Amino acid sequence: MALKSFIEVRPDSHFPIQNLPYGVFKPSPNSPPRPAVAIGDYVLDLSEIASAGLFDGPILKNSSDCFHEPNLNKFLALGRPAWKEARTTLQKLLSSTEPTLRDNADLRRKSLVPMENVEVLLPIAIGDYTDFFSSMNHAKNCGTIFRGPQNPIPANWFHLPIAYHGRASSIVISGTDIIRPRGQGHPAGNSPPYFGPSLKLDYEMEMAAVVGPGNELGKPVDVNQAADHIFGLVLMNDWSARDIQAWEYVPLGPFLGKNFGTTISPWIVTLEALEPFSCDAPKQEPQPLPYLAEKISKNYDISLEVKIKPAGQKDSSVITKTNFNHLYWTLTQQVAHHTINGCNLRPGDLLGTGTISGPEPESFGCLLELTWNGQKPLSLNGTTRKFLEDGDEVIITGSCKGDGYTVGFGTCEGKILPSLP
Amino acid sequence: MALKSFIEVRPDSHFPIQNLPYGVFKPSPNSPPRPAVAIGDYVLDLSEIASAGLFDGPILKNSSDCFHEPNLNKFLALGRPAWKEARTTLQKLLSSTEPTLRDNADLRRKSLVPMENVEVLLPIAIGDYTDFFSSMNHAKNCGTIFRGPQNPIPANWFHLPIAYHGRASSIVISGTDIIRPRGQGHPAGNSPPYFGPSLKLDYEMEMAAVVGPGNELGKPVDVNQAADHIFGLVLMNDWSARDIQAWEYVPLGPFLGKNFGTTISPWIVTLEALEPFSCDAPKQEPQPLPYLAEKISKNYDISLEVKIKPAGQKDSSVITKTNFNHLYWTLTQQVAHHTINGCNLRPGDLLGTGTISGPEPESFGCLLELTWNGQKPLSLNGTTRKFLEDGDEVIITGSCKGDGYTVGFGTCEGKILPSLP
Repeated sequence: MALKSFIEVRPDSHFPIQNLPYGVFKPSPNSPPRPAVAIGDYVLDLSEIASAGLFDGPILKNSSDCFHEPNLNKFLALGRPAWKEARTTLQKLLSSTEPTLRDNADLRRKSLVPMENVEVLLPIAIGDYTDFFSSMNHAKNCGTIFRGPQNPIPANWFHLPIAYHGRASSIVISGTDIIRPRGQGHPAGNSPPYFGPSLKLDYEMEMAAVVGPGNELGKPVDVNQAADHIFGLVLMNDWSARDIQAWEYVPLGPFLGKNFGTTISPWIVTLEALEPFSCDAPKQEPQPLPYLAEKISKNYDISLEVKIKPAGQKDSSVITKTNFNHLYWTLTQQVAHHTINGCNLRPGDLLGTGTISGPEPESFGCLLELTWNGQKPLSLNGTTRKFLEDGDEVIITGSCKGDGYTVGFGTCEGKILPSLP
Repeated sequence: MALKSFIEVRPDSHFPIQNLPYGVFKPSPNSPPRPAVAIGDYVLDLSEIASAGLFDGPILKNSSDCFHEPNLNKFLALGRPAWKEARTTLQKLLSSTEPTLRDNADLRRKSLVPMENVEVLLPIAIGDYTDFFSSMNHAKNCGTIFRGPQNPIPANWFHLPIAYHGRASSIVISGTDIIRPRGQGHPAGNSPPYFGPSLKLDYEMEMAAVVGPGNELGKPVDVNQAADHIFGLVLMNDWSARDIQAWEYVPLGPFLGKNFGTTISPWIVTLEALEPFSCDAPKQEPQPLPYLAEKISKNYDISLEVKIKPAGQKDSSVITKTNFNHLYWTLTQQVAHHTINGCNLRPGDLLGTGTISGPEPESFGCLLELTWNGQKPLSLNGTTRKFLEDGDEVIITGSCKGDGYTVGFGTCEGKILPSLP
């Protein structure tokens, strides 16, 4: 029989007892942030559970102070054995057959807070944010659009998971408005470059891995041990100003075209919760170098969807339907590659997958691809879009369908505000 | 008459009372880190000065707890009025005519520690590290080497200070050994890519600005106010593996070719101390866009030198002699550009200048340029170098010559250790 909580969880909820994703919230505007897991329409305040002495397993009984921190970094640093223990403890505590919390009205009142009443915060202090480029269809489409259909994918792409460093300071939590960036675009002929509000503002449908224990500077992580360095996944929108990016990116890569804002979803879904949805990663040809060759090459079957809700419209339109399993390079290969030169990861680092596009046009993960750089405007419920307009809300969701339950990520949302005058 | 300290300062010292650069040190291996300024061969422990109540100006008398922190970030966030007040207080306290510290043997004993006895640490918690590409000669040389002599400088270069995001986690303090990174290089013909220890390990002679007060996400910094966001400068060696970089950097820029280590000097020299050495920045043609056009366009006359000391040799050889004033884009233009899209800077962020090369061959700031990508090996005291070899120590120094004193940066050093087996 499926595990069931004493808390009622709607069948379509993203947060059944099988999920228990981690986040950080404030019960009221002036209270300090505290770690939590989501369960149905509630958040379970882990600082209260720790204070009640209920993390009583061998690891956490001496280190449950990690749940009195304003972010999850200390918990992340503890590693997989502690994460497994916490999951066991919490699944037991929340199960319908366990009286400890179920029958303790005082503790329930203190520790279970309706989600609609709380403010969710960035769950981690992000030291470094790296963005990969691991979807082959995205690489092919972008290459074709920018460099033509001959050899659209650069020669290095099939040998290494290409990545660049993004901006950590401008990573924001779902629901934060995004101000349209100003910047330079390509000059027309001999004129000076364009300057003004971006004319090609885009979203990018990504997911991102949250790093658990790091590695010491100079000590690479073996690809077959790399999963132990990944705590879980979030949804991510890597907002992109294509005109700024196109003009600035030679020869050192994207900068102002990306670093004005990156949105993540508030609840980190653990690899443990995703394990039932693991699947084979695509076959890689040519075979990767030994440091990237892994014994088990795993993806996850996570359905992903992007909707746009234009200002003033009641309804949103689905514009992307894709899946995490389109990624060519696995999360573990990303970690092994990132550290092969000795680069050190730290708990809380964020590793974006890059835009996740599938082979079908409706699975393309950004407007650049969907509208082919604005050449084929997209129909949206009576209006059209080449790129994002002011007032547009972009809503990303993701979930895995289990047998009678859903393990989901909630949403990753943001609205475009007009540029500064 | 020139300002003079009661502490004897050798005439060639980098740290006279006119400098007073900020750092963080540990008096003994188990003591907590504490902020300091360097004076001659001593460090002045600012936590002791704060505890003694000697920061008694209007701003710091209520916020001198910033000197009880393990890094300078809180002090940096206070901004220029606080920095000026601290400088006035410390210059008075250390001057030969002021008895407060000079005649208080107990306080002198507690607060003045011989520099040779202390461990210096990274002075700041670095949230984000950005590296610019602001030397025209460096851009021209690299462009010629990689893309040929026709139009070696990309079209965008004269319109914006090109930059990319670097890695914050692998920034280390001077004196930290650097392990030769392993990684992929270009395949030869139809073979798989090269994999192994980098064969083209290089240094890059840079300086970096340390950000003071940040800006809110979405709110650009005006170029004419940008100087108030810069606390001071350090020396920086942006170690680079040219073979890894050349293979990976298309289309998203440098990643593993750079992020295995970046070394900075321990003492942050403030813009106040550098002000006597300010000079006009180069004339910019074409004229920059209005958001980059500044009323006063300032560089600094800082002589920079790089030496290599091969393993087993007693002497080092000078290989680069250059100057900060070769930079085309100013520090203030870098800040204005970085934030024009709304990107937020935070106190302690690091903004590298990029390699500082002048027009003369001896002023080239890296081996890639000095040996023209290994084609013209460099003579070094009886041996030669195309790129760095194991055991090589790279020592960067920088200083400004004043009237009877030197405002210097000390050194930024690192030794190459062999790659992991």
